[in-house]
Amino acid sequence: MQKIKTDPNKPLILVVNDDSIYAKGIQNLVAAVKEFGQVVVVAPGLPQSGMGHAVTLDNALRLRKVERFEGIEHSYSCSGTPVDCVKIARDVVLDRKPDLCVSGINHGSNSSINILYSGTMSAAVEAAIEGIPSIGFSLCNHDYQADFNTSKFVVQKIVDEMLRKKLPNNCLLNVNIPDVTLEQLKGFKICRQAIAKWEEEFENRIDPRGRPYYWLTGRFVNYDTKEDTDEWALANNYVSIVPVQIDLTDYNNISFINKEWTL
Amino acid sequence: MQKIKTDPNKPLILVVNDDSIYAKGIQNLVAAVKEFGQVVVVAPGLPQSGMGHAVTLDNALRLRKVERFEGIEHSYSCSGTPVDCVKIARDVVLDRKPDLCVSGINHGSNSSINILYSGTMSAAVEAAIEGIPSIGFSLCNHDYQADFNTSKFVVQKIVDEMLRKKLPNNCLLNVNIPDVTLEQLKGFKICRQAIAKWEEEFENRIDPRGRPYYWLTGRFVNYDTKEDTDEWALANNYVSIVPVQIDLTDYNNISFINKEWTL
Repeated sequence: MQKIKTDPNKPLILVVNDDSIYAKGIQNLVAAVKEFGQVVVVAPGLPQSGMGHAVTLDNALRLRKVERFEGIEHSYSCSGTPVDCVKIARDVVLDRKPDLCVSGINHGSNSSINILYSGTMSAAVEAAIEGIPSIGFSLCNHDYQADFNTSKFVVQKIVDEMLRKKLPNNCLLNVNIPDVTLEQLKGFKICRQAIAKWEEEFENRIDPRGRPYYWLTGRFVNYDTKEDTDEWALANNYVSIVPVQIDLTDYNNISFINKEWTL
Repeated sequence: MQKIKTDPNKPLILVVNDDSIYAKGIQNLVAAVKEFGQVVVVAPGLPQSGMGHAVTLDNALRLRKVERFEGIEHSYSCSGTPVDCVKIARDVVLDRKPDLCVSGINHGSNSSINILYSGTMSAAVEAAIEGIPSIGFSLCNHDYQADFNTSKFVVQKIVDEMLRKKLPNNCLLNVNIPDVTLEQLKGFKICRQAIAKWEEEFENRIDPRGRPYYWLTGRFVNYDTKEDTDEWALANNYVSIVPVQIDLTDYNNISFINKEWTL
């Protein structure tokens, strides 16, 4: 395809997600951000939850124009992962680097360690790697018919700040929105990622030919009850905003190994 | 399956990778670590490069016993991703938490930002989330027939230290091995992750029915020439060891947003 000619006089906003371009969450995200600039959507054609930072190396990718978002000229489904969407948007679809990338609104929380499993957050991370200010939004409700009214308020508030006051470092936020009404919402908390994990309990079943197979199930366990965490904020009806970095180096362990190990 | 009864008197070492259980890299990794304890292998049945931290939510998983590693009683292929392998090993295969997880040896570098895309490193990250001391090994050579002689020395040296001197924090290392002989190897460097990224150049092709499709290609660009990085170490024939953390919070930006933003 020809790259689309973007409007140089408006902020260029790339919208992506992992629940697919047909999800209610991305429809609400587009509706919330379209007043802030020129919106271009590149999102997966099929659901991609739990795809993490996967990229498609062994298959070619397809792009298809999708007419779905009111007042938005350019929206495309991509046959790949959420991270593929960001890469192909940047290189094939857009004629310049977006001023902002927003990902979501995810159907379900991406707080704490879930940032690693989430396609929605990985798309936002990929944009940050590209030097694009970037925000992943998630609503703490998995239901397809969830109410995105509070989310719209939250998205607009944060996008407005993000466009006016840039973040100094890699410019990436993990925003989770409690499933409450606007009246119940207590406000916003800037948080750290809670120390939590999934405890797996694979469900063992037997197929009609007598062979075992396993379904991944599990429960999310939060070991971290402190008040500066995203889990605390969400449990207390605050929006949690975790600034995220893409340098995973553990600097404390550099000194430790240099001192204690003999290599 | 019945959980395997592990030997309580030996360190339990879980071996995983992303190039599949049939790759030469994992065969060399098993050979290198088997003298350190009881080795159990759970690795993907098919190549899973670039799968990042993906988990399988929409399909059931299969486990199959594989006879492939000399002197190793328990090795299984799994139909899922590298992260699935760690989860199913922990919950279905093993009767206790491993003392160490080693992932690889990856055919190709996982230095710098590649930790996010790499299935090999994501498996190691998943083990660290589970509280298992964990190391991902990668050789800077993509060739199937690469020479793993230097790698064997490197793996044994690091595993020996790791088992004797625990790391204080989340216990995860990203180890990359330059493609050189033992004589050319200069030693080991404890490093930070270099600031680098992939510049995508999708290749546009036309299928026999006249429709476009796109192949992800690109080149790795290192913006960070400082001597404390993994890229510098590898370019100068050192093994790079980057200690990795799983808390992605950018603490500097917490203070910035609290001071500068109005929410």
